[in-house]
Amino acid sequence: MLFHQRAKMQGHELVEGYTGRFVHGEAITVAHWDVVAGNRIPSHAHHHEQIVNCLEGTFDMTVGEETFRMTAGDTVIVPPDVEHSALAVTDCRCLDVFTPVRDDYRL
Amino acid sequence: MLFHQRAKMQGHELVEGYTGRFVHGEAITVAHWDVVAGNRIPSHAHHHEQIVNCLEGTFDMTVGEETFRMTAGDTVIVPPDVEHSALAVTDCRCLDVFTPVRDDYRL
Repeated sequence: MLFHQRAKMQGHELVEGYTGRFVHGEAITVAHWDVVAGNRIPSHAHHHEQIVNCLEGTFDMTVGEETFRMTAGDTVIVPPDVEHSALAVTDCRCLDVFTPVRDDYRL
Repeated sequence: MLFHQRAKMQGHELVEGYTGRFVHGEAITVAHWDVVAGNRIPSHAHHHEQIVNCLEGTFDMTVGEETFRMTAGDTVIVPPDVEHSALAVTDCRCLDVFTPVRDDYRL
C-alpha cells in the first residue's frame, strides 16, 4: 500500500506520552509522533540510522553526550548504535525516519 | 554534524516554487520543502526509495498511474525506479525522505 492517510491510521502509545503512527517502505520506516509535554524517552541505542525532525513544539534530543534543543523545522541525526534519549519540553509533533525498517514498529 | 537548525539552513529552489532544505545522514537524506501553490514536479524516477510526508496544505502525488490527494499527516511511498510527479494544490510544506542518500542534493 502506497498511500497512508493519518485519519485512517491507529496511534500506538509505545512510551508514556509518545503516540506514534508508522509507515514502512522497503528500507525506510517513518514514525509520526504526538508527544505530551514532560515525557521522556529513556536512553537506548539501535543499529538503525535515525533522523529526528521536530515539526511543532520544543523537544530536547540527547545524542551521546550532547543535548540539542529542537524547535519546528530542526533536525537531529542519530548515527547507528549511538545512545540517545529525549525530553518533550512542550507538547510536540515529531517525525522520525529510520533505515533499515523498524520491524519492532510493525504493529 | 548532527544538529541542523532550520534558521541556519539555506533554502534552494530546485524546481520553480519548490524550495528545499536538505540534511544528509549516512544512508538517509531528509528534504524539507516549502512549496508555492500551483507548481508541479514533472514526472521522473530514481533508484532511491522515497517517502513523502505532507505537513501542511494539499498536495497531489502521482505514483505510477495513481494520484493521491495528501493533506497534513498523510504519507505516500514511492518505490525505487517508479515514475512519479506532484502538484501543489495549495501552498504546502512537505518532508521527503530518501535512501540511499541523494548525492545530487548535496548543495
